[in-house]
Amino acid sequence: MKKEKNESKLDVMRHSAAHVMAAAVKQLYGDQVKFAIGPTIEDGFYYDFDLGKQTISEDDLPKIEKKMKHIIKQNLNFIQEDVTINEALTKMKDQPYKLELIKELGTEKDKKTVTFYKLGDIFEDLCSGPHVESTNKIGPFKLMKVAGAYWRGDENNKMLQRIYGTAFQSKEELEEYLNLLKAAAERDHRKIGKELDLFVFSDLVGPGLPLFTPRGVAIIDELKKYIEEVCHSYGFKKVMTPHLAKLDLYKISGHADKFADELFHVTSKSGHDFVLKPVQCPHQTQIYASKIRSYRDLPVRYMESEKQYRAEKAGEIGGLGRVYAITVEDGHSFCRVDQVKEEVKNMINIIKDFYDVLGLWGSHWVSLSVRDYSDFSKYIGIEEDWDKCEQMLQEVSDEMGLDAKKIEGEAALYGPKLDFMFKDAIGKEIQIPTVQVDFATPQRFELAFTNEKGENINPVMVHRAILGSYERFLVLLIEHFAGIFPLWLSPVQVKLLPVSDKFLDYTKEVQAKLDKENIRVELDDSSETLGKKIRKGEQEKIPYLLIIGEKEVKDNKVAVRQRSKGDLGGKQVDDFINEIKQEIEDKIID
Amino acid sequence: MKKEKNESKLDVMRHSAAHVMAAAVKQLYGDQVKFAIGPTIEDGFYYDFDLGKQTISEDDLPKIEKKMKHIIKQNLNFIQEDVTINEALTKMKDQPYKLELIKELGTEKDKKTVTFYKLGDIFEDLCSGPHVESTNKIGPFKLMKVAGAYWRGDENNKMLQRIYGTAFQSKEELEEYLNLLKAAAERDHRKIGKELDLFVFSDLVGPGLPLFTPRGVAIIDELKKYIEEVCHSYGFKKVMTPHLAKLDLYKISGHADKFADELFHVTSKSGHDFVLKPVQCPHQTQIYASKIRSYRDLPVRYMESEKQYRAEKAGEIGGLGRVYAITVEDGHSFCRVDQVKEEVKNMINIIKDFYDVLGLWGSHWVSLSVRDYSDFSKYIGIEEDWDKCEQMLQEVSDEMGLDAKKIEGEAALYGPKLDFMFKDAIGKEIQIPTVQVDFATPQRFELAFTNEKGENINPVMVHRAILGSYERFLVLLIEHFAGIFPLWLSPVQVKLLPVSDKFLDYTKEVQAKLDKENIRVELDDSSETLGKKIRKGEQEKIPYLLIIGEKEVKDNKVAVRQRSKGDLGGKQVDDFINEIKQEIEDKIID
Repeated sequence: MKKEKNESKLDVMRHSAAHVMAAAVKQLYGDQVKFAIGPTIEDGFYYDFDLGKQTISEDDLPKIEKKMKHIIKQNLNFIQEDVTINEALTKMKDQPYKLELIKELGTEKDKKTVTFYKLGDIFEDLCSGPHVESTNKIGPFKLMKVAGAYWRGDENNKMLQRIYGTAFQSKEELEEYLNLLKAAAERDHRKIGKELDLFVFSDLVGPGLPLFTPRGVAIIDELKKYIEEVCHSYGFKKVMTPHLAKLDLYKISGHADKFADELFHVTSKSGHDFVLKPVQCPHQTQIYASKIRSYRDLPVRYMESEKQYRAEKAGEIGGLGRVYAITVEDGHSFCRVDQVKEEVKNMINIIKDFYDVLGLWGSHWVSLSVRDYSDFSKYIGIEEDWDKCEQMLQEVSDEMGLDAKKIEGEAALYGPKLDFMFKDAIGKEIQIPTVQVDFATPQRFELAFTNEKGENINPVMVHRAILGSYERFLVLLIEHFAGIFPLWLSPVQVKLLPVSDKFLDYTKEVQAKLDKENIRVELDDSSETLGKKIRKGEQEKIPYLLIIGEKEVKDNKVAVRQRSKGDLGGKQVDDFINEIKQEIEDKIID
Repeated sequence: MKKEKNESKLDVMRHSAAHVMAAAVKQLYGDQVKFAIGPTIEDGFYYDFDLGKQTISEDDLPKIEKKMKHIIKQNLNFIQEDVTINEALTKMKDQPYKLELIKELGTEKDKKTVTFYKLGDIFEDLCSGPHVESTNKIGPFKLMKVAGAYWRGDENNKMLQRIYGTAFQSKEELEEYLNLLKAAAERDHRKIGKELDLFVFSDLVGPGLPLFTPRGVAIIDELKKYIEEVCHSYGFKKVMTPHLAKLDLYKISGHADKFADELFHVTSKSGHDFVLKPVQCPHQTQIYASKIRSYRDLPVRYMESEKQYRAEKAGEIGGLGRVYAITVEDGHSFCRVDQVKEEVKNMINIIKDFYDVLGLWGSHWVSLSVRDYSDFSKYIGIEEDWDKCEQMLQEVSDEMGLDAKKIEGEAALYGPKLDFMFKDAIGKEIQIPTVQVDFATPQRFELAFTNEKGENINPVMVHRAILGSYERFLVLLIEHFAGIFPLWLSPVQVKLLPVSDKFLDYTKEVQAKLDKENIRVELDDSSETLGKKIRKGEQEKIPYLLIIGEKEVKDNKVAVRQRSKGDLGGKQVDDFINEIKQEIEDKIID
């Protein structure tokens, strides 16, 4: 199975809708509109316009939609036309962006003609197609939003106006998509992150650099504790490596080339010259390399949670999903060839244990991501090793009943991998965990162990990601649970609501007891009414609200309200503590 | 009490010894020797020489010492002589380094003459003195080592030969110092760190960038767990802030100026421009600033363990003591003025709790580090606030019986502080924990809370360091305990020594049991004799060695050898586990 190219029937139709949108904008805003480009994207299409001094706002979208419907109704044909470069330049003489593109095409070897598509006689665009035959083939569509976008994504260029839209084959599909978007917006991690006070940004620190509040850190720490516990039981040992390195390290690993544009360079007045690490793996090879290893010492399994850095384009930064630094939980096993399968299986079991607890195991499919067989130059290593690794992963999939689908072109730089795809609560597909077999890196770093015969042999390096980075995993968690985290992950597990200040002393005793048991507890000592306190606690999605009034103080009790089950009545404080501790330990999802 | 200047009697004598050493080198290596500079340093003195093609090795030091003794015996006088710049240039015409220095002195305003010191008639040096009267005032001395050193510390200049020496007033003091050095060398963290496999360096990653092995991380994690536990009980909450920021952040805080030369700048192909954080405090102000705060919300206490960076000079990097990135355990309380004293006391109690467990509390003295009253331009804030803070710290010292000594000129950039000085096992003084009161930073960042009257007020920021950075604290721990860590900090707590392979199955059962209880356990399954296994375990300073032979397997026991108590006889496995768990929990030092 080969990954589908972006030229599906749906894409062709959406791209045609983009032309119709451009035609509508031309009719509405006049001949002075300069057209940039209008490709399809994952869920729809866009077109970038230079409108001079005019601006389009979201309020204008219905007007444009109306004009598009009018054009579509006329059932105009899309007609392909090949013209010479010179004819093209003449045709587009008033369109500077198109001229730039045509001139570039003209420099290509053996390029004599370029392709245009005409939409009836109302619009003509430089475009290699394909398109639907005529506008009646365009399904239900909707314009989504407007945004600014630099010409060619380069902030030194002019800012253009981009209109996003989408189109589907049926009304039902469009509606389903819009509903999903609405649900996703309600679950958006930026929205919930702010409501629950999990992380913040600061203009002085800069965008793409989240600061985690105590509540955000509570979640991260629980995840860290759990993943370390699971990995410990499979023999992984924690290491800690620096965030800087000489570029040499990545020249050897091959990442200097791969991430050339995304590397952060670190310099100083005294002439230091480092890079911020774009990946963890090369650092871990250096701990392996620090000792002489014998076949008896293998496998050597390392894990760590440290930051790695990518110089993402400023325009692409947003929320926790795309940041400059991610805290990656990364791990590797250095092992003998005869141990690889067992190591891969171990790692798959870690993935299973981890995602099972979150209720996600079962909603997944597995990709056996192999190389692009048509172009080996994208990879490092030798093809024979690649064949061996792919074979091994296929066997593991068979033996463990993973039913992995072979996807070409999705392998890592250094080897094939098993990727696990999960569906979150609203059906969004998430690809995080992965197990990757790598013969190449140990060779590049000349890692070795002594075998039974005293010979020096390269170990195999098996890479694994379980939760990936804490930043992006938080996006998944927040949006999957819509902020209603399982008790063990809740930033605040219990909130104490004294009915009045009279009961504050007792409430503080209860607070101290819970705190001592490492239960995350907060006290609402505001002067609000009980009703308001309860509503606030519910909005904050806190698993347990404990109401404390005269009766509770008298009986040494608390009145328990559970987030999903409602009023559970009065409980002795110690009983409540024991019950909640058990629920935390069992990692129950309510 | 003002910090002593480096012009004590001892320094004067040592500086005179440096001249005698230079005279000896001149007599031994001839007139072609070019003299650079010869100052005193903390524990002695050095002199830098350009010997042309000749080299001095440590083997040559006795010869030079002998010549020095010969010179000293002649009881030559040190005679001061002021000469004009021109005379000085003539005098030193064959000494290029001295010429460079004289020319520089000549550019100083109103500088007409420079000072020389003559040593009898055998040596004359450009030197502002002072010196002892005559060589019989020079006490017992010793030349320590030779090293290469660039002229003026600049690697673009010529590499000179440096000889280090020391001198004391009495033979006993010299001997005591040499013994201390010997003890320190045996405890050197680089030596023990390597022996115990706690951290490594890699040429590919670069110097100054340690990689922590699983054993090193075990210690760091225990420290982290304990400090978080202690600080949690005093109301501190964990946050996590990025390692990058815009320079703007530090322009406001004042650190951009203070650390101008030590900042690492981070850039990319896409035009990013950040710095690596030289301190944590400004980031934490931004979390405080992310919410509206009322007087009821204060104090707000944050702690974190993240990396901070200083572009130390390449030549000064070494071991864990001086690295490019340190993992700093840092914390702050944002509070009202009426809460400051309580916050300071809380922090001092944290320091007490933490150092007490390591057996260090009691061996300390406290410095009330105040500003240099002669030059306020070195600090930020207003003097009135400084007076208030100094007063408050003095009161805390009195109320808690700290008996703090007032030391002028040792305050932080933004306020006075209480610094705690400990003595390690061999008497070396270590300054790590500190509590600092800061009115200036909250004003600079416009931090605020609403008081009872609804007015916006700046909080006070109280800074505290407990263990400082994990890197430097490891140096202290390793050297203080000479690698014989208390059980709870031992990277390997138990090692299993099966008498032969026959008992391997049972041994592995014991290993699994210990591992499940989170006891750090290793198995020596080599084919060595039991005697060799025991010696190896002892060299590795492992607290418990468990020997397993026929008798132990039969009785479901282990034979226990404790590091300091020796053979403890056979114990039931479960009994041993319970005992050791208690010892870990109690953090016993054996």
